[in-house]
Amino acid sequence: MIHNGHPSSQYSLTLRLKISNKPGMLGRITSLIGKVGGSIGSIDLVSAQDSELVRDIVVNAASEEQARKIPQALHKLKGAEVLHVSDRTFLVHLGGKIEVVAKIPLKTRDDLSMVYTPGVARVCLAIAEKPEKAWNLTIKRNTIAVVSDGTAVLGLGDIGPYGAMPVMEGKAMIFKAFGGLDAFPICLTTKDPDEIVETVVRISPGFGGINLEDISAPRCFEIEEKLQKRLDIPVMHDDQHGTAVVVLAGLINALKIVKKRFSEVKIVISGVGASGVGVSRLLMEAGARNIIGCDRAGAIYKGRKENMNSTKEWYAKHTNPDGVRGPIAGALKGADIFLGLSGPGTVKASELKRMAKDSIVFAMANPTPEVMPEEIPFVKVIATGRSDYPNQINNALAFPGIFRGALDVRASSISTSMLVAAAHAIAGTVDPKALGPDYIIPSIFNTAVAKAVAEAVSIDAKRCGVARRRDHNTADV
Amino acid sequence: MIHNGHPSSQYSLTLRLKISNKPGMLGRITSLIGKVGGSIGSIDLVSAQDSELVRDIVVNAASEEQARKIPQALHKLKGAEVLHVSDRTFLVHLGGKIEVVAKIPLKTRDDLSMVYTPGVARVCLAIAEKPEKAWNLTIKRNTIAVVSDGTAVLGLGDIGPYGAMPVMEGKAMIFKAFGGLDAFPICLTTKDPDEIVETVVRISPGFGGINLEDISAPRCFEIEEKLQKRLDIPVMHDDQHGTAVVVLAGLINALKIVKKRFSEVKIVISGVGASGVGVSRLLMEAGARNIIGCDRAGAIYKGRKENMNSTKEWYAKHTNPDGVRGPIAGALKGADIFLGLSGPGTVKASELKRMAKDSIVFAMANPTPEVMPEEIPFVKVIATGRSDYPNQINNALAFPGIFRGALDVRASSISTSMLVAAAHAIAGTVDPKALGPDYIIPSIFNTAVAKAVAEAVSIDAKRCGVARRRDHNTADV
Repeated sequence: MIHNGHPSSQYSLTLRLKISNKPGMLGRITSLIGKVGGSIGSIDLVSAQDSELVRDIVVNAASEEQARKIPQALHKLKGAEVLHVSDRTFLVHLGGKIEVVAKIPLKTRDDLSMVYTPGVARVCLAIAEKPEKAWNLTIKRNTIAVVSDGTAVLGLGDIGPYGAMPVMEGKAMIFKAFGGLDAFPICLTTKDPDEIVETVVRISPGFGGINLEDISAPRCFEIEEKLQKRLDIPVMHDDQHGTAVVVLAGLINALKIVKKRFSEVKIVISGVGASGVGVSRLLMEAGARNIIGCDRAGAIYKGRKENMNSTKEWYAKHTNPDGVRGPIAGALKGADIFLGLSGPGTVKASELKRMAKDSIVFAMANPTPEVMPEEIPFVKVIATGRSDYPNQINNALAFPGIFRGALDVRASSISTSMLVAAAHAIAGTVDPKALGPDYIIPSIFNTAVAKAVAEAVSIDAKRCGVARRRDHNTADV
Repeated sequence: MIHNGHPSSQYSLTLRLKISNKPGMLGRITSLIGKVGGSIGSIDLVSAQDSELVRDIVVNAASEEQARKIPQALHKLKGAEVLHVSDRTFLVHLGGKIEVVAKIPLKTRDDLSMVYTPGVARVCLAIAEKPEKAWNLTIKRNTIAVVSDGTAVLGLGDIGPYGAMPVMEGKAMIFKAFGGLDAFPICLTTKDPDEIVETVVRISPGFGGINLEDISAPRCFEIEEKLQKRLDIPVMHDDQHGTAVVVLAGLINALKIVKKRFSEVKIVISGVGASGVGVSRLLMEAGARNIIGCDRAGAIYKGRKENMNSTKEWYAKHTNPDGVRGPIAGALKGADIFLGLSGPGTVKASELKRMAKDSIVFAMANPTPEVMPEEIPFVKVIATGRSDYPNQINNALAFPGIFRGALDVRASSISTSMLVAAAHAIAGTVDPKALGPDYIIPSIFNTAVAKAVAEAVSIDAKRCGVARRRDHNTADV
């Protein structure tokens, strides 16, 4: 993993130190930590004796390598002993991050007679007679399956279903925190698109929606499309559409700053995987006309022969109207917008310098951006996929509200117009007076975002006829 | 649904009444409710005016029919008006009974950087390198899939995956309340055994155990066996083994009361579905020699031709040593133990009268027993599957502790000896001094039960070599 610039909580340690109780010792320790690049978080006193203190010091580092160097440096300091080092990120994940709990008490025989046998039998029969009652009498109406095969996890590639679990659990946490939805991770041992489709169809009865996640392109397109045909609940591949919605929201606001329009800008996209294609489609829906997608073989154009597949054929047909060919460096000349949805190092700072005046760069590779913001001070508006820089293009701004809105009206699917509505809702939560190069996207901790997105999505679902529940504010047993 | 005798919370109503504020009105109402068979739970005052009171009255009825008659009777009473009737059991199930929540806070950017991108990437990579780390760094170590195809739900038969959901959610509640385990319901749209096996294998990475539930026989045997071969986590069909463990526990104690031994008793079982076969196998493991299983065609014997399948062939070969033939009434003559695992009405009280002295009857059909306890006062020890009679044979006594014990030591499977150990642990929680015909089985609200079962199962898992973690009390990142 490359060095990412500044200390962050992702490389956070808790150091437990035994320290001689002499004046100036703590200062010597903290300055040593600072000297090797660590940033002090908090300092706690664990125990105190006359001659010795035991303290816990939380330290953020800038990289895994640096995180290793900090306790090494302290080992050499006289009067301080490192008792224990724990990696706070790993501790957070210990034993998993979500749990399944009861919504109602189970303390008495009466409770048990109602939630389980014998009372539950009447509820089961009511649903068996009329299966749509499952929307009222089971968890279906608030529950999302977060499904992955682990083939395209973050920017890490095919790391398998076990490696994917921590991301899917994190996703479930975000679904709950921002959308009030109950999401459960389902990681699959198969990579075969038809087997994935079959599996998801078979487990679908308990779910009100399917969030596909971190499935590699072009398989993800086929899987999503087939599932949408087979199921009567919303199916959304978040890497395509969640990302697309937030990119569109960010660009709506960024273009206000530079006073340009979708219809006139030149957009270069690095990466035509799931998110690259999803973003391109939604930007075209929003009026963009000149999009050039690039992969390892350079710009995708009509007639290209190398490194193509069915999705790229479609892409070549619908983008790059000027037929630009060759490496990304050439395509970037005079471009207004660069969108990175690939991996670290796929574009150089010097290449981005060739862009038009008031350029916009979204470098969204995860966890390490295509180019670090520090390297491109000449760009007008910069966004990344990270939470430790301004303007984080984070799907979490979109998916909780989109599914919340869809489930609130029991939508049978999520239409493109619902996604555009979601993007405008996100962009609209940024106060025009506060809008600026460092603030084009709301904080994901802004609770107004998911509410605004859910409402916009619900309204559009009714408008386009996919809502099956029009008055969603009344209970109905 | 047939009339079940006495009022119970499964037919519980909340009646909202507007009542004239005159002396004696409430008494007239409660005595009218009593006259039509209702039993008053609690009475609340909702609002009071000079001339009128609004009250909520919780009433338990004995059947659905009776529950309908109570408000009808009140409609005729002068000075009382029924404003609203709500069915408390349905209200309990409204919107489902479980939810998915975060175990750690998600309030700040630092939290997000650790649980999700970018920090999560290091955790994902650590697991991808060494998949067994999923046991420490994901929910796997505490999570159970409760899988059903809805083909044999309670005693209701094939009511489909949607109708099955309320039971599976209830099961998840019990897993949490008694075993501290996180269980999630997976109801399937397929009934094909091979498709069920494939589906469960594919979704298995996030789970530490598979609880198969309410899958009809003989398909359930094949599905369980194939899954056990394919997966390295415990797979248990609870209808077979959970029931068997609790029946064995109950019989261990019942036999103490009547002073008989497994090796000498004659046992007649009505129903050779999943639980009938599971119970028979475990009783033989515990020393029973003379078991006669009966289905609709009567006793199963070696050479029978009608109504057979592969499981019944096995059953005929291993049970009924005296080759008893014909209807269950004949088999019951002189029997010591009758175990009902079929449906209401499959045996008559008069037939049970033919059993030996000090007879034991477990009438476990759900929700309505084969014969109601009120009809068989001549039986020495009676147990049912219901929570509203003494001696409830409830799987909930077994499965939370069994899976807790198995997951604590990361067992790769659940052996028969682990099940026998679980039964002895359950039986052992009944204080010998308190043991009697009405108390052979502990209350499922006795928190000592799951702990005792988990410990017995863990110890036996280590003994028989399926435990992959021997020191399960230390954390290990």
